[in-house]
Amino acid sequence: MDRRSFLRTSALGGAAAAGTTLAAPAYAQGREQLTMFTTWPRGLAGVWDSVERFANNVADITDGTLTIDARDSGQTGLGTQVFDPVVSGQADMYHGADYYFVGQHPAWAFFTAVPFGMTAPEFMTWYYGGDGLAKHHELGDIFGVKSFVAGQTAAQGGGWFRSPIESAEDLQGLRFRMPGLGGQALAALGASVQVLAGGEIYQALSSGALDGTEWIGPWSDERLGLQEVCDYYYPAGFHEPGAALSVGVNLDRFNGLSAPHQRAIEVAAAEAHQHNYSLFIANNGPALQRLIAGGTEVRAFSDDVWDAFGQASQDVLEGFRDDALFASIHDSMQASMQEASGWMQRSDSAYTAQRNRVLGM
Amino acid sequence: MDRRSFLRTSALGGAAAAGTTLAAPAYAQGREQLTMFTTWPRGLAGVWDSVERFANNVADITDGTLTIDARDSGQTGLGTQVFDPVVSGQADMYHGADYYFVGQHPAWAFFTAVPFGMTAPEFMTWYYGGDGLAKHHELGDIFGVKSFVAGQTAAQGGGWFRSPIESAEDLQGLRFRMPGLGGQALAALGASVQVLAGGEIYQALSSGALDGTEWIGPWSDERLGLQEVCDYYYPAGFHEPGAALSVGVNLDRFNGLSAPHQRAIEVAAAEAHQHNYSLFIANNGPALQRLIAGGTEVRAFSDDVWDAFGQASQDVLEGFRDDALFASIHDSMQASMQEASGWMQRSDSAYTAQRNRVLGM
Repeated sequence: MDRRSFLRTSALGGAAAAGTTLAAPAYAQGREQLTMFTTWPRGLAGVWDSVERFANNVADITDGTLTIDARDSGQTGLGTQVFDPVVSGQADMYHGADYYFVGQHPAWAFFTAVPFGMTAPEFMTWYYGGDGLAKHHELGDIFGVKSFVAGQTAAQGGGWFRSPIESAEDLQGLRFRMPGLGGQALAALGASVQVLAGGEIYQALSSGALDGTEWIGPWSDERLGLQEVCDYYYPAGFHEPGAALSVGVNLDRFNGLSAPHQRAIEVAAAEAHQHNYSLFIANNGPALQRLIAGGTEVRAFSDDVWDAFGQASQDVLEGFRDDALFASIHDSMQASMQEASGWMQRSDSAYTAQRNRVLGM
Repeated sequence: MDRRSFLRTSALGGAAAAGTTLAAPAYAQGREQLTMFTTWPRGLAGVWDSVERFANNVADITDGTLTIDARDSGQTGLGTQVFDPVVSGQADMYHGADYYFVGQHPAWAFFTAVPFGMTAPEFMTWYYGGDGLAKHHELGDIFGVKSFVAGQTAAQGGGWFRSPIESAEDLQGLRFRMPGLGGQALAALGASVQVLAGGEIYQALSSGALDGTEWIGPWSDERLGLQEVCDYYYPAGFHEPGAALSVGVNLDRFNGLSAPHQRAIEVAAAEAHQHNYSLFIANNGPALQRLIAGGTEVRAFSDDVWDAFGQASQDVLEGFRDDALFASIHDSMQASMQEASGWMQRSDSAYTAQRNRVLGM
């Protein structure tokens, strides 16, 4: 197979080429390797576990005939800009959070998280049991990318605050770190929204440059030391009620793989999604207990704050619906979410509330 | 590899041999086949999907070098008695619900469902992110079986009733179909618990021989026509808050497989678990809407009924704790459940309640 036949000029391909290393596929001894640009620093808790789980799955189940060469963000120098190199064929695939690619198309947000969207179990239901996976590929077809979700942080925390949020008025002028569509919603409510990389957050809070931040969840947040610089933690948040991570393969490259290798990527990614979800929850539980034991005060937003979050979130999503594909995916997601929630709130949620009441949990 | 070296006399192997067909492994052209005895009629909605998903995954990702020959319960004539043939090596593996094997060891129940136990997301957390998988193998080592969960019905419904259950007193003398440890708990509360196969339930309710039944969930229950013979449906139940399905391979047979084939089984099973969970929820939602539209009255048990369910469930589980392994797995499960729930009730559940309130869902 001629590698060069995959190299093509993309309308999007030029922008992010600087600073990258050209992918060098290895075909020695009949083996294939996919060079994967990731948006993550190597070893980032939970997130890098998803990278390794996926890559190890692929190598294991293909008996090493297909391997993944995962490059971290430091190696490529690209940060979150890994999409265009995959479209252009400079890299074979990416691992990242698809909402980093909303500049290419706003609908990529649905395959990570949107504010007031689905929890992780609802996302699984839509993606694997409904139209989600097909919609993911419909979107990817526009760009020549075949994507699959491969990780899941579960519900991300509402965030850390130096002073409690008592009402929606307290959001006015609040200097808060929140990326993505959630950040747009928060800005519409009067907050001064900033987007800092993980490594810069602690210092900004410590110096008083920020009033608060969201990050991921107790496991990851504890490692950043956020409990040292903020007294108040809100476990429930509106902005990323379940956040998927994805891999995406250059479509020509994907179509050139054998059918077993294609299915190995799909099955390995899905296994990594479930495994990563489990890993985040398993670690968030004990971390939350440690944070509470260490003096963090756990709070919940009041109804009027949630009302404001909800209205602003709907406004942000509404603003993209003039794009037909965005509207189509949004409708698909909402229909699935309402059906799934209609069952789960009467079964799982009702059960859990009663069990926790009876057992005193 | 000599197949006969796997055939051994097991203390448990004799009982279920009648009526089975000897497994005939095929090694033609370097390919291996595993004969899988299942506890299910072919095509059973949702459940057989798990069988097919797992088997197709294995064949696809191994390029057909490992295939699964799935036999339904009609072909083997064994019903749920598929464990002993796998232990003895008469079959290579099973697909079933592990709580069918509580006669071999009561701890098998933990790998399907126990009353007042984990929801499916909590189960994933324990199994993949905690000690669950290791405990599954620790239990299997006693019998010479390597098991992996490979399907998930999600929360099973509380059940169907011809008259509403207003208080715990209404359980006295109630003729109700419920298998397993949940059925034992219900019997302790004074119910006349019966265990009928799926095909017999409709007639028993129609003739008045039963006052009610649980089955699986709206999707499956609607297909049995239970809405035609019972007016009241309780979506939340105590007995199977999340029910896993499993595959288990004869341990010597498993150890004789190549490392890639071993990992293919593990990854294929995990993918099937998540996929099956999603399929059940995706179908339960619309089915519940249809049932309600068709006139089924949806109810919730009162607190005093839940109190009674909780006490009886704890008593049943306590009765098995003199077995050290049972107690060890029970403790592991409970610790994980409490930690996971401590996070999820403050994040996912709190978010979902607010989202559904704000959006009017």
